[in-house]
Amino acid sequence: MSVYWNARTRGLEPYVPGEQPRDRKYIKLNTNENPYPPSPATLAAIKAAGADTLRLYPDPTALELRKAIAKRYKTTVERVFVGNGSDEILAFVFGAFFESGAAVSGVAAQGPGTTQGPLPAQGAVPAPVLFPDITYSFYPVYANLWSIPFRTPPLAEDFSIKVDDYLGLSGGVVFPNPNAPTARAMPAIDALRIVAAQAKAKKVVVVDEAYVDFGAESVVPAVADYPNLLTVHTLSKSRSLAGLRVGFAIGQEELIEGIRRIKDSFNSYTLDRCALAGAVAAMEDSAYYDEVNARVVATRDRTAAALRKLGFQGPPSTANFVFMSHPKVRGEDLFKGLREKGILVRWFNKPRIDQYLRISIGTDQEMDALVQACAGVLRDRDAEA
Amino acid sequence: MSVYWNARTRGLEPYVPGEQPRDRKYIKLNTNENPYPPSPATLAAIKAAGADTLRLYPDPTALELRKAIAKRYKTTVERVFVGNGSDEILAFVFGAFFESGAAVSGVAAQGPGTTQGPLPAQGAVPAPVLFPDITYSFYPVYANLWSIPFRTPPLAEDFSIKVDDYLGLSGGVVFPNPNAPTARAMPAIDALRIVAAQAKAKKVVVVDEAYVDFGAESVVPAVADYPNLLTVHTLSKSRSLAGLRVGFAIGQEELIEGIRRIKDSFNSYTLDRCALAGAVAAMEDSAYYDEVNARVVATRDRTAAALRKLGFQGPPSTANFVFMSHPKVRGEDLFKGLREKGILVRWFNKPRIDQYLRISIGTDQEMDALVQACAGVLRDRDAEA
Repeated sequence: MSVYWNARTRGLEPYVPGEQPRDRKYIKLNTNENPYPPSPATLAAIKAAGADTLRLYPDPTALELRKAIAKRYKTTVERVFVGNGSDEILAFVFGAFFESGAAVSGVAAQGPGTTQGPLPAQGAVPAPVLFPDITYSFYPVYANLWSIPFRTPPLAEDFSIKVDDYLGLSGGVVFPNPNAPTARAMPAIDALRIVAAQAKAKKVVVVDEAYVDFGAESVVPAVADYPNLLTVHTLSKSRSLAGLRVGFAIGQEELIEGIRRIKDSFNSYTLDRCALAGAVAAMEDSAYYDEVNARVVATRDRTAAALRKLGFQGPPSTANFVFMSHPKVRGEDLFKGLREKGILVRWFNKPRIDQYLRISIGTDQEMDALVQACAGVLRDRDAEA
Repeated sequence: MSVYWNARTRGLEPYVPGEQPRDRKYIKLNTNENPYPPSPATLAAIKAAGADTLRLYPDPTALELRKAIAKRYKTTVERVFVGNGSDEILAFVFGAFFESGAAVSGVAAQGPGTTQGPLPAQGAVPAPVLFPDITYSFYPVYANLWSIPFRTPPLAEDFSIKVDDYLGLSGGVVFPNPNAPTARAMPAIDALRIVAAQAKAKKVVVVDEAYVDFGAESVVPAVADYPNLLTVHTLSKSRSLAGLRVGFAIGQEELIEGIRRIKDSFNSYTLDRCALAGAVAAMEDSAYYDEVNARVVATRDRTAAALRKLGFQGPPSTANFVFMSHPKVRGEDLFKGLREKGILVRWFNKPRIDQYLRISIGTDQEMDALVQACAGVLRDRDAEA
């Protein structure tokens, strides 16, 4: 704590991303990156962008990129927003649509606050934003940043999202589909039940489709029907561009304009010329990325089967990672054992999921090494027992 | 307005950046870009970064870049923060240090609000943040975004900042040095009077040194003495990298940690691999940029003299732009006349400065064209009269 920090800063518990080791000694399966590189056309576009125009500001409206995305998703440029990764977009979305108010639930560090802004009336507490208890752990951080009350309905025992929990009074809803870190997807028809229910009260539903390209059903086609639906996407996973920081959102004009108002009160130019050029090329090169992602899916299914053969359990994955536990070894021990064998995975020290590992899908060779290392940890444990 | 926007979004008046025309028919002197390209070493580093690592997230701590900046400014890596342009850093700074509270002064669109967060007590209004009435027009936008009360002491008639206005009770102070769009610099000794006065009340003073490399005195050396001093910098001007989106801040550890807490509640990775690599190279190539900036300064002084010869008036410039008016032609007419002649400059339709143009310094050839076009507008006007 510092005397120079304001009340907001003192109350924050910032998000902690997965490690990015600077040396190369690990097989890195901890941040859900794509094991395959961006397409040659993407790389060529990025290199070309570095030439004689870098002294000039980029286009603050990112028109060319929005055009490329609109074309790929069969929508209009007015229905596309782009940002510095989907994380930045989510930060803007929380700031644009979810009402700030009193005591942020579920975050002990945050004391009771009072309502902010001209509405609602002083003392009134806006309805909480809803997201699952087990989900992307940045959501409560965003809520805390903007002092937004939230409630976290628990997932079912099988880690599915219980749709009925999201149909009532709310300040808005946000969930990833497939969910992270569980990897479990919700059918589009269920997601749209939530969207339709919240539409009546004019509440925004954000479907975070970061991992949707690995087999789940997208609700993008429903944007035309629901003015309260926003889908959020990233080029970090299915377009192999985590290092370039590009994300986008698709929604009707009023939602896109709302996000833009926050962005233009924050930073005029969030995407540099290299990122813009690379993202356009990636959007236009779907054939390459479809093929790469099909390989990731095949490797995932093969890996999941091999892990289940070793006794691992977990929900079915439609993402580029699996979420698994083993009845005989504690999650923390598995995590440490794999690390000792040179494999980095993600372990969350949190209630309900602290026996699980989130394992990103790498190349076939990397996943063979992962399965072997898991078998090794299990053998080591049997030897000790 | 939209039913989906929250109170914050409805109350915003977003910043409007200068035009970025997509065609090349204009001589572009409207957004203070450097007329010379980044150094060859910078461009080479950016191209190299695009190779085999783009599928991986960048280093969220940007350690290598912070090291390069620390070395260049003779400070430590713990005293350096980097962000997606100085605009993003300023957005974080307002969110980290300046207390949110009631009615944002000077912004009619913003209704009365109430205090936010656990401190100060409900109903109490924090002291306003201070910045000049004529300054970077993003400051009131940031204040509005975070519901921060502010007060804007007027500049003196000669557009100098009146130091005495910033020595009393405040919620913090922010000003650019040299100021924008006036181009007028404050001696470091005066800036430090403000820092010292606010240090007693533990209030943060932000000196926005976006344009300092064109001849003003930096207060970076004083960071070691003042825990409440933060300097903010950009690579968009003196490092010719507006298209790459990199800025940095220098301050003592508590301030840097405060900004980092906001950033890590917002977006883990704000700088992509191309931006990080290019910025490191630019920091290590000072000889090139010093030479380029000396040329900009020489061109500026020659241009200002030529404009004064035509009857233009304005404060002395220590930036990479000049701020000028002409007693015989209205600012708006000058702006439009230059535009018709193919030259884009910036005109602000605001009290006190609506007779002035902010003219970025281009190449010698571009500024010769500017001076000729100004002479042309004056002749056209005389012919009409």
